[in-house]
Amino acid sequence: MITRKIASSDIDLICRHREMMFSEAGRNPDDLLAMAGPFKDWLGPRLDNGTYFGFVIEDEGRAVAAVGLMEIDWPPHPLHPTEPRRGYVFNVYVEPGYRRRGIAQQLMQAAEQEFTARGIGYLILHATTAGRPIYERNGWVATSEMAKVLSIKS
Amino acid sequence: MITRKIASSDIDLICRHREMMFSEAGRNPDDLLAMAGPFKDWLGPRLDNGTYFGFVIEDEGRAVAAVGLMEIDWPPHPLHPTEPRRGYVFNVYVEPGYRRRGIAQQLMQAAEQEFTARGIGYLILHATTAGRPIYERNGWVATSEMAKVLSIKS
Repeated sequence: MITRKIASSDIDLICRHREMMFSEAGRNPDDLLAMAGPFKDWLGPRLDNGTYFGFVIEDEGRAVAAVGLMEIDWPPHPLHPTEPRRGYVFNVYVEPGYRRRGIAQQLMQAAEQEFTARGIGYLILHATTAGRPIYERNGWVATSEMAKVLSIKS
Repeated sequence: MITRKIASSDIDLICRHREMMFSEAGRNPDDLLAMAGPFKDWLGPRLDNGTYFGFVIEDEGRAVAAVGLMEIDWPPHPLHPTEPRRGYVFNVYVEPGYRRRGIAQQLMQAAEQEFTARGIGYLILHATTAGRPIYERNGWVATSEMAKVLSIKS
């Protein structure tokens, strides 16, 4: 298996992975359907200009896992006092037949190397219940983030 | 007491509030010192162009509390399937003599109204231990965010 950089031509792969990830996490199918078009529209230009980047793992030429990355503009913070960016890790997906072989860990190592090369030392992600133990084993800890959904059309 | 919009001239107030907030939360003074200059540099242009916005509460012309807000570019998500923005609430600070009067709640109501007007229905924040009960009473819930600090210069 080889690890390669994400390319613009991976757009459908990434959309499928994101849908499968959320579907397996138990998200409402109607919400996933509503998200599909807007996410693809969001993703296209960001793949093209490189603000969505990341890695794909291939087995004999077939993509079987991927991770998406982006830099987030963030106010300098006690945990990164001189750096106005955080690294975001998302759309981590390993196809069912390839799990429990350390592939997610491989993707996360590639992600850390990439952010290190970019000078970004504070990384965040949102974990699914299935993903959390993998991240915990790799040194990730829960933050104090809270959310509120307002009752408006979004 | 009156509530007014944040202005560019509030830059020193906001910097002071951010420092006090983190200081009261027990952050390392060295990190706060390192953050001060970079945060002010980050804030200035964003106050000027309105991407940092929010509210100040004044008591007889003196600012005694404030909240900062920004829109974050975010991939369409099951919780906001057609909207590529999240609202971020930060730098919530009420001066010590003005606490336990519902002022933080007033700031949060102003924040929710502002994001509603902007069509943003999914809001996030990072709570200090002191702030968490206030947010919980107002319908905020913990997310699955995790973080990792890499050992590089940031």
